[in-house]
Amino acid sequence: MAGSTYGNLFKITTWGESHGKAIGVVVDGVPAGLDLNEEIIQQYLNRRRPGQSEFTTERNESDSVEILSGTFEGKSTGAPISMIVRNKDQHSADYDDIATYYRPGHADYTFDAKYGFRDYRGGGRTSGRETIGRVAAGAIASEILKKLNINVRAYTKSIGDININYSNCQISNIAKSPFSMPDLEASEAVEELVRLKKEEQDSLGGIIECIISGMPIGVGEPVFDKLDANLAKAIMSIGAIKGIEFGSGFMAAKSTGSQNNDPFIIDENGNISKVTNNAGGLLGGLSDGTEIVFRAAVKPTSSIAMTQKTVNKAGENIEINIKGRHDPLIVPRAVVVVESMAAITLVDMLFMNMTSKIDNIVKIYK
Amino acid sequence: MAGSTYGNLFKITTWGESHGKAIGVVVDGVPAGLDLNEEIIQQYLNRRRPGQSEFTTERNESDSVEILSGTFEGKSTGAPISMIVRNKDQHSADYDDIATYYRPGHADYTFDAKYGFRDYRGGGRTSGRETIGRVAAGAIASEILKKLNINVRAYTKSIGDININYSNCQISNIAKSPFSMPDLEASEAVEELVRLKKEEQDSLGGIIECIISGMPIGVGEPVFDKLDANLAKAIMSIGAIKGIEFGSGFMAAKSTGSQNNDPFIIDENGNISKVTNNAGGLLGGLSDGTEIVFRAAVKPTSSIAMTQKTVNKAGENIEINIKGRHDPLIVPRAVVVVESMAAITLVDMLFMNMTSKIDNIVKIYK
Amino acid sequence: MAGSTYGNLFKITTWGESHGKAIGVVVDGVPAGLDLNEEIIQQYLNRRRPGQSEFTTERNESDSVEILSGTFEGKSTGAPISMIVRNKDQHSADYDDIATYYRPGHADYTFDAKYGFRDYRGGGRTSGRETIGRVAAGAIASEILKKLNINVRAYTKSIGDININYSNCQISNIAKSPFSMPDLEASEAVEELVRLKKEEQDSLGGIIECIISGMPIGVGEPVFDKLDANLAKAIMSIGAIKGIEFGSGFMAAKSTGSQNNDPFIIDENGNISKVTNNAGGLLGGLSDGTEIVFRAAVKPTSSIAMTQKTVNKAGENIEINIKGRHDPLIVPRAVVVVESMAAITLVDMLFMNMTSKIDNIVKIYK
Amino acid sequence: MAGSTYGNLFKITTWGESHGKAIGVVVDGVPAGLDLNEEIIQQYLNRRRPGQSEFTTERNESDSVEILSGTFEGKSTGAPISMIVRNKDQHSADYDDIATYYRPGHADYTFDAKYGFRDYRGGGRTSGRETIGRVAAGAIASEILKKLNINVRAYTKSIGDININYSNCQISNIAKSPFSMPDLEASEAVEELVRLKKEEQDSLGGIIECIISGMPIGVGEPVFDKLDANLAKAIMSIGAIKGIEFGSGFMAAKSTGSQNNDPFIIDENGNISKVTNNAGGLLGGLSDGTEIVFRAAVKPTSSIAMTQKTVNKAGENIEINIKGRHDPLIVPRAVVVVESMAAITLVDMLFMNMTSKIDNIVKIYK
Repeated sequence: MAGSTYGNLFKITTWGESHGKAIGVVVDGVPAGLDLNEEIIQQYLNRRRPGQSEFTTERNESDSVEILSGTFEGKSTGAPISMIVRNKDQHSADYDDIATYYRPGHADYTFDAKYGFRDYRGGGRTSGRETIGRVAAGAIASEILKKLNINVRAYTKSIGDININYSNCQISNIAKSPFSMPDLEASEAVEELVRLKKEEQDSLGGIIECIISGMPIGVGEPVFDKLDANLAKAIMSIGAIKGIEFGSGFMAAKSTGSQNNDPFIIDENGNISKVTNNAGGLLGGLSDGTEIVFRAAVKPTSSIAMTQKTVNKAGENIEINIKGRHDPLIVPRAVVVVESMAAITLVDMLFMNMTSKIDNIVKIYK
Repeated sequence: MAGSTYGNLFKITTWGESHGKAIGVVVDGVPAGLDLNEEIIQQYLNRRRPGQSEFTTERNESDSVEILSGTFEGKSTGAPISMIVRNKDQHSADYDDIATYYRPGHADYTFDAKYGFRDYRGGGRTSGRETIGRVAAGAIASEILKKLNINVRAYTKSIGDININYSNCQISNIAKSPFSMPDLEASEAVEELVRLKKEEQDSLGGIIECIISGMPIGVGEPVFDKLDANLAKAIMSIGAIKGIEFGSGFMAAKSTGSQNNDPFIIDENGNISKVTNNAGGLLGGLSDGTEIVFRAAVKPTSSIAMTQKTVNKAGENIEINIKGRHDPLIVPRAVVVVESMAAITLVDMLFMNMTSKIDNIVKIYK
Repeated sequence: MAGSTYGNLFKITTWGESHGKAIGVVVDGVPAGLDLNEEIIQQYLNRRRPGQSEFTTERNESDSVEILSGTFEGKSTGAPISMIVRNKDQHSADYDDIATYYRPGHADYTFDAKYGFRDYRGGGRTSGRETIGRVAAGAIASEILKKLNINVRAYTKSIGDININYSNCQISNIAKSPFSMPDLEASEAVEELVRLKKEEQDSLGGIIECIISGMPIGVGEPVFDKLDANLAKAIMSIGAIKGIEFGSGFMAAKSTGSQNNDPFIIDENGNISKVTNNAGGLLGGLSDGTEIVFRAAVKPTSSIAMTQKTVNKAGENIEINIKGRHDPLIVPRAVVVVESMAAITLVDMLFMNMTSKIDNIVKIYK
Repeated sequence: MAGSTYGNLFKITTWGESHGKAIGVVVDGVPAGLDLNEEIIQQYLNRRRPGQSEFTTERNESDSVEILSGTFEGKSTGAPISMIVRNKDQHSADYDDIATYYRPGHADYTFDAKYGFRDYRGGGRTSGRETIGRVAAGAIASEILKKLNINVRAYTKSIGDININYSNCQISNIAKSPFSMPDLEASEAVEELVRLKKEEQDSLGGIIECIISGMPIGVGEPVFDKLDANLAKAIMSIGAIKGIEFGSGFMAAKSTGSQNNDPFIIDENGNISKVTNNAGGLLGGLSDGTEIVFRAAVKPTSSIAMTQKTVNKAGENIEINIKGRHDPLIVPRAVVVVESMAAITLVDMLFMNMTSKIDNIVKIYK
């Protein structure tokens, strides 16, 4: 129990259900003196807001955030920051019949088993709306990272079989693509594919890639709180994520040491750098000063309009057609969630790393 | 800092360096009344012991475990169980020169940056010997799982390009294969491949697959301590692991909802089961009562005898030949480590799940 | 940082400032199936509400609680329960001048040093209003304890020099006394004393005693999470508490082993009991099945109307008269806060104790 | 379960029983670069070693510590430091009969109830020998505090009815007194008292006072991890401690606001200081830059040779005479344990405080 809190020094606690009164988060451990207001947070939330293109759920939520505590005169005070988003466009009636059966791919069955019953309206706590709290917290983490010139950028690498072509990629494209793809050609191909799958009442999955630049060297805590280990937990805790890999990832399993090792080199500026980055910016679970690169696999949306076989609580085999308003693919709106969970993890681990050397402690206190 | 402790209710703390006096672990939260002695633990440790075939390091360590606390008359008492393995066959001299340069693929560089210096002998804390503590703790976790009829089994799925063929697989083969492969044909092919790569002074990676059966439904704590999220952290915290996926994993990204959803069905015994298991035994981050399946990518051993380019502390580009006794591939000895970290995580989360319903609490106290 | 979360399995996170928009708490780890609604919580909150007698602050707050998540059809779902109380009767203007100086006995000075600045309105996060979140969470904990027939009762033992006389005490008196004293004679004497001190523009302290009955034997986790250790932290974390003692407490320091040891005896029902209870219901940090008894010392309200010497931020010695609406004594309203923190701690530790024996685990899972 | 770990960033895990093979501790989160070796640790351990005067147990243990990990060339490496002390002079036979009954004042009864059985030899995990791990860890914490010019000093304030007279006190006396009293006159009076009580086969309690100087302002994490709250937990977790108070403590309950508030003043050096220190160096749970002062009540040794009434496991009322070698009073040897737990807590909270301001973070990373 009590799995709604994440982080050690930078700690977030999310709460709220899809069709409850509101969704929110408490962020504790925010250092005092950071510029913060609702406009800053809202920009991040707007990136995951539904209804921004024909390719997302039709549920219409403005998702306006209210900061209830922890700031004073536009700055964080060091006290916990409580943020809330009221739910507005709930169609709970859509969900009345799902109370009686178990949707394939959803957690209806496991929640009933664990808790004895469940809040079935819109998936309750398992809804994608739960990520609102993650993104609001991630916004604060991202503002802290900015102060340290650390940048976290995620984007869609593939949808179904359509992959981005790196030679076509531009950062500025990400915001232009309804699928958060940096390659607009690929994005257009995806557009067609999604329309087809919507017609077929089916859904699509994809891969999100995330690149972190500007990380200081040595962040991560051996041996269990390695930076990649904690990032893996953070990202895997997002609903619908089924896998994660760093650097060459699963390809490393097929390569040899001489291929996969990244030789160190003294670069033109006299700095230590690496010739390649198969390691994905991590050596021994610590950031190595190069870009941290990871990819996460997102499964296709479980809620599809197509007829599906399943069982009901009475123990009967039945056929269902899921109503409600669902995204034909989760990937594009999950991009900012991946960035958020990465940012939260980075801040927490940057904080933890501050006591690695006795000199750092003396620097703060003397 | 303080990253050497893992788990909440079942908590392990590992310590020790490759060429220090000893390696050990303290396991806290072991319920009282469990049969435990050194023989039981030793069986698990023997599976990761070096020197068992020509394909592992020549370092000769018996790795005999001593239990120092927490048992009385052959049973756990509820007190922390401290276990120690003395290091014996240390060749520290092999490592004198690595003090001056950074080995590619190793954490030498990041440790120096983080801590200001490092115990360079045999990789110090980043050595594979650190996993001794994990396996000794995993042995206790596995004994607890046995009481609940839960089984954790890992094996090598592939080495380089050689994959097991599931139709050839038998559990009993795993112990017969020097690579822990359930398919002896594949194992023989690997044997040849490894001999070749050793000759080339190179190394190999591979994929470990793990299957957990017998799990009760509903284990996992939404939303951050999902069972897959915590397993991902546990497995990714093992050195050399570069990725993890559950069920259909990265393939899910290419499939559609109608392909990837596992339909529920009432089976011949009147129980709810699933027609397929693309979910890998987890729905919404909770165990769904079917087999939990995950795969982890293991990179090739970083220490290779082949000449490599790197830099030294003086800021010069140099060429090195790593001495010492190294495994040509990490995978086979990592199998038991993967099982151990999985078992530890399962026990911790089974314990956490016990308070999910008010009825459970009443059952214990009334 | 991140000190706003308390508890392991039953975990509360409080937020909010005296003169911010609202005060609240998220309670995570509440087992599913507990009857819960706003009326139940409100009853506990009403006990700490201001304005209930002439002896509390004149700030008029209804402190109406709203449950935002975690319940469905009147029962807890296992999801985090978010509760909020809007601030209404704020007179922020009263606090404008305290921005420039440091009030004796308050945390103005230490907050400025720690965070660089502070939300000075009404003490911000250090206000007594912060305890609203504790009481709302304590209400849930108390409902869980009721299911196990465990009772937590605190009351005022003394104010200034006036002590209750145990021979006059009745539980039913506590609610009748404006000072939560079980002895109405003592309560009347206190009434006079408080009037006198108010006239003198001064304030009073006192001692709260808490008695816990019905605890199962053996709750508490050696060696650091002893039940008394965790209760001590919980109670000491309440503002204005300056000391805590269990059983004979500081008197034990003056007694001998033969006086202080509580002999065991087989009672008339054939049960093991103790002849005396100098231990206060705890042996080795574990509950021993008898009443747990502790006392907490509450300092006099720091905000007094009387002229006081202090310093301002400009580095000058000044004299001040604190305006605002303050309680002449904190004790009576702190009684329910003490009960709440005790209840929260008991629930957390009852949950932790559930895995003490392997048999308990088998009982839940088989 | 799992109560053997204490601390967040500076984390200690103790293990071992009185009559097991050894006692030990793992200290994780020690910053790299601290001078550390066995001689340094041993000095602290020698202060709690038995057999140093006629007033302690006759058990003869050299308590020689061995560092097994985490140091390299005389400095901490950032890796966990494992320390072990082998038990040598065990007389387990002394304890055979206590297996069958419950000693008054001891945890025999509660351990049996919690765990189903217990390691009865010498009290097992509840023995005073458990504190060896605390002191070894405290030694490391104290070395860190030295780097920051923070000093922790505890001493015996009273034994039975005999109090120190502050006008007689000198720091240098503490080491001269067999009871760690800074007033040698009082110490001599205690000597007589202890001889008398030993003759009577009885035991004595007392009060330990601890003074911490040099603390930076603002250390402590509102609202649950206040510095006094965490110190209270740390000290109360030591066996035999029955109460703790800070500054004026329980006396504050009898005073008024005008008496108990400490006026701020600009001192002769232009610094902010306080005229008095009733607060005990803490305002709002944060260190205020003045001396932190607390007192802990220690109960008389439970093991007395005098005949006592109790019950056995067969459910009979019996009379017992406890054999074994016991201290007639615990206080003197507990002094260094109090210092140790205070030092560990201070280091942990100094580390946590480092992220209170965004400026601190920028200072470390830019």
